[in-house]
Amino acid sequence: MVNRNCRATLRLLTLINRQGHPHPPLSSSPSGHISHSYLILPFSIAFVFLTVLCFYSGTGIDACWKQLQRNNVHGEHKIVSFFSPLASSLKTRQWGVKIQSRCYGSASVLVQRNPKFSKLNDEDVRYFEGILGAKNVIQDDEKLITANTDWMRKYKGSSKLLLQPRTTDQVSEILKYCNFRCLAVVPQGGNTGLVGGSVPVFDEVVVSLSAMSKIISFDKVSGILVCEAGCILENIISFLDSEGFIMPLDLGAKGSCQIGGNVSTNAGGLRLLRYGSLHGNVLGIEAVLADGTVLDMLKTLRKDNTGYDLKHLFIGSEGSLGIVTKVSILTPPKLSSVNVAFLACKDYSSCQKLLQEARRKLGEILSAFEFLDSNAMNLVLNHLEGARNPLPTSLHNFYVLIETTGSDESSDKQKLEAFLLGSMENELISDGALAQDINQASSFWLLREGIPEALMRAGAVYKYDLSIPVEKMYNLVEEMRSRLGNDANVVGYGHLGDGNLHLNVSTPQYDDKILSQIEPFVYEWTSKHHGSISAEHGLGLMKANKIFYSKSPETVKVMTSIKKLLDPNHILNPYKVLPCSSIS
Amino acid sequence: MVNRNCRATLRLLTLINRQGHPHPPLSSSPSGHISHSYLILPFSIAFVFLTVLCFYSGTGIDACWKQLQRNNVHGEHKIVSFFSPLASSLKTRQWGVKIQSRCYGSASVLVQRNPKFSKLNDEDVRYFEGILGAKNVIQDDEKLITANTDWMRKYKGSSKLLLQPRTTDQVSEILKYCNFRCLAVVPQGGNTGLVGGSVPVFDEVVVSLSAMSKIISFDKVSGILVCEAGCILENIISFLDSEGFIMPLDLGAKGSCQIGGNVSTNAGGLRLLRYGSLHGNVLGIEAVLADGTVLDMLKTLRKDNTGYDLKHLFIGSEGSLGIVTKVSILTPPKLSSVNVAFLACKDYSSCQKLLQEARRKLGEILSAFEFLDSNAMNLVLNHLEGARNPLPTSLHNFYVLIETTGSDESSDKQKLEAFLLGSMENELISDGALAQDINQASSFWLLREGIPEALMRAGAVYKYDLSIPVEKMYNLVEEMRSRLGNDANVVGYGHLGDGNLHLNVSTPQYDDKILSQIEPFVYEWTSKHHGSISAEHGLGLMKANKIFYSKSPETVKVMTSIKKLLDPNHILNPYKVLPCSSIS
Repeated sequence: MVNRNCRATLRLLTLINRQGHPHPPLSSSPSGHISHSYLILPFSIAFVFLTVLCFYSGTGIDACWKQLQRNNVHGEHKIVSFFSPLASSLKTRQWGVKIQSRCYGSASVLVQRNPKFSKLNDEDVRYFEGILGAKNVIQDDEKLITANTDWMRKYKGSSKLLLQPRTTDQVSEILKYCNFRCLAVVPQGGNTGLVGGSVPVFDEVVVSLSAMSKIISFDKVSGILVCEAGCILENIISFLDSEGFIMPLDLGAKGSCQIGGNVSTNAGGLRLLRYGSLHGNVLGIEAVLADGTVLDMLKTLRKDNTGYDLKHLFIGSEGSLGIVTKVSILTPPKLSSVNVAFLACKDYSSCQKLLQEARRKLGEILSAFEFLDSNAMNLVLNHLEGARNPLPTSLHNFYVLIETTGSDESSDKQKLEAFLLGSMENELISDGALAQDINQASSFWLLREGIPEALMRAGAVYKYDLSIPVEKMYNLVEEMRSRLGNDANVVGYGHLGDGNLHLNVSTPQYDDKILSQIEPFVYEWTSKHHGSISAEHGLGLMKANKIFYSKSPETVKVMTSIKKLLDPNHILNPYKVLPCSSIS
Repeated sequence: MVNRNCRATLRLLTLINRQGHPHPPLSSSPSGHISHSYLILPFSIAFVFLTVLCFYSGTGIDACWKQLQRNNVHGEHKIVSFFSPLASSLKTRQWGVKIQSRCYGSASVLVQRNPKFSKLNDEDVRYFEGILGAKNVIQDDEKLITANTDWMRKYKGSSKLLLQPRTTDQVSEILKYCNFRCLAVVPQGGNTGLVGGSVPVFDEVVVSLSAMSKIISFDKVSGILVCEAGCILENIISFLDSEGFIMPLDLGAKGSCQIGGNVSTNAGGLRLLRYGSLHGNVLGIEAVLADGTVLDMLKTLRKDNTGYDLKHLFIGSEGSLGIVTKVSILTPPKLSSVNVAFLACKDYSSCQKLLQEARRKLGEILSAFEFLDSNAMNLVLNHLEGARNPLPTSLHNFYVLIETTGSDESSDKQKLEAFLLGSMENELISDGALAQDINQASSFWLLREGIPEALMRAGAVYKYDLSIPVEKMYNLVEEMRSRLGNDANVVGYGHLGDGNLHLNVSTPQYDDKILSQIEPFVYEWTSKHHGSISAEHGLGLMKANKIFYSKSPETVKVMTSIKKLLDPNHILNPYKVLPCSSIS
């Protein structure tokens, strides 16, 4: 039986797709109130984050780096967060909000330079010039600063050499020589990583793939793209767009990140729910091992069961097993119809059931299923300029953003409407709105994607990016809330469809007492519930020693054996991914 | 502009979905003729093949096995095809058709028993009885014959011991002991492999996973299933069906094959086009290494970037790196609407373009795209009982079977109809029919899936299962046709959407001259065009020495190093996957 009260509260509004065709509303509000409703392109939101990150410069960073450099003089590298206490306590941004910064104690570890590594000399430089030509052997200070510094300006190395090979053979020659000389190497793509994986820790030689940026081939029948590792993701996306295809991967950092880096870090991003991980989409790679051996695994086949599928070792190994030089990837066709709904749920259980229903009823067109709790919604509404609640009559416990992407606007709309009505009848959603143009859809996405910015404006923030089985995911938020009491605002949001929780703890000021209540509890809890302490960012330098929270000692032992097998001198991206204790 | 002549020839008929709701025809034939049209469940067709295979027993096989046993007496194993000349030349089946059989020269190689392996003794048996209990240590002749013989009855070992562990710890204890004693081991699931990978070559101990068949957990929200390796695929499918989900994998052998074996062989099957390979769907595994180490990688997470993703080494390594004991897999929701169309194309180029259009226009609901050429169609119509051409007015050069699976029958139908009309207007298809009930759909599928049976009835057949980039795929068929002239009927069909070609050469009698014209040409051509000589069956014993046709020496060298690292005594599934020369 239809629950008419329930239906009546659903302010599902006129849906206008991209082509601008209006459709009648599913139902209207009994009060006659028409809420703001919207339609999408969520990915442009990434710009907000890039902008926010760009603000992180100034005296605070300089002081932090000076401290790092002092440490490096003594052959040690103390990992100091960009948010360092050295870097001042409060700063005022152009939006007039005070942003707090601090050094996370949990991220501070001491790493010793491996004394087995040689120090670069003039003869080495001449050798590289012989391989690459002088202009591709960079010793210029300004360019080296960029190559030595990560995107977040949290990590900084002191490399004196940046190499820019243009061919796989050149990469091979470089590594062969470095391996022979025992010179440590950091492979670098767009340098957009968040865990200190793509910059030197000490004086490692940086091998940039930026000059290898050719699209090699594209098969329009099967949608298979082959390109060099240095192709910027956004350029690939543009190329594919002109061919009527899309990348199965999209990231906020797409304007800078490179496909080789994406593959090496197994980047997740915004399309994982729909298209799965790179392990499923990457059909082949070419990689160069530490000794210069070129592994040609650049297949363009969906099926190939001839021996061990070694490419997977290089997907997500963060450049520590080899340098990815070429990639072959399966790309889906571009679909024309995109719709967005913003919904309210009374409890987490309803969010879960709604996901379950969405997977069944929307199945093949579901492309995003994001959630945020009321604390997250409050933060965004109170701290983010331009954020408006499309369901303003009352604050609900949970909100869900659903996006569909399909090939037929009419049938997609019908499916979504039927799903929403059914969900209302089953009382899984208590209110909701459908987007009606791209700006309004962006406003929906802003509520979800704007949370990190709102958190930073609200005060101090402790951030955790975790994978946890969906059923148990929100238990951690509740346990943390009960653990911290009134001392902190615990906020839960994330990619519910992927089981990826962003757990954030917001406090007025940074406080080590709070931190000690959060860590190691958060890692232990995640480990106990078979979760992952790094959903998609990798381990890099930041979490190399935390691997045991997510992987068994036996598994890490095998990883270490494989590292030793493929890179016996450990020259590739040292100090990262695996604990130093297991490598030495 | 609409090509009305073209539209008029499309005999697209009344579509009746599973629920039996009739829809008006897209168009009717100008002649008023209504062709037979159909709707689906294709997977039941697998029964036909199982039945065909079951016919392969009798004096021919016995003679073949006797020859094998004679060879084994001398410590050698000559691989003899079930279709052996020893096994008689012609046999009459219950359908009254003569089936030819022969020994493929190309599959006959000599393998020496590795003298490093110990021979089983009574003490070993007592030790295993201590671990497993006497009833799970099988020495019974009849059961050993089954365990020693592959599904095709093409390979036969002479193992004297079959072990049936019930827990991972027992598997670990077994391998630890075997490794210590240097006793070779063959892990065995449902024993449905086609390349001799799942049976002993000599006297290896068979470790069957059949007794480990529990479903451990199922998360209805995320669709993640965790189960033991011995679960029969069909049982998992039934379990998931009751929960409203499906396996992303379906095979003809589902009634016997086990999920551990599916994962170990990276089985492809009927749903790969839609859901991708097991590398994308398997979220975690538990595996036991040769020395008994248990690797717990049984994550139930879609995102986990903490170190190297080792599970991929075990997916498709055919039990040669470890024994998979548990599996975690992401399962999609069951969708209610399935439609099938059978279409005619004037040339291969049109088939390719049609695939391209189908990927774009049907995108998210496309679940199969199969093709057959006119030679294949002729064979089926002439040799397969019950086969009827739904487009009988003339013989076309190519036929395409398209299946869609979605969540909404009405919108799916509309999408498919619009796609078919558009394809007619663009002259990509010259005729076509839509299925109207499950029996009729099965008849469509019979035309595609019945080809192997028709080929066997037609005379001698040389079969090749290849992955080739779609654009070049049919060139091989044409080149083979031109190479063999009037001496043979060259037939091309397969999973066009996956780039998987089944190339078959049909001749009145087996003839080594023909074989020498086919091989090694077919492997060299495939290699030259960056294809794979084993699309989905693996290498096993049959193709271990042919790996270099698809993988570079450098890649095989790394595979070999990993084999030596994880199984230094080479006790796991010896003589298979990798060339003996690289292992010894």
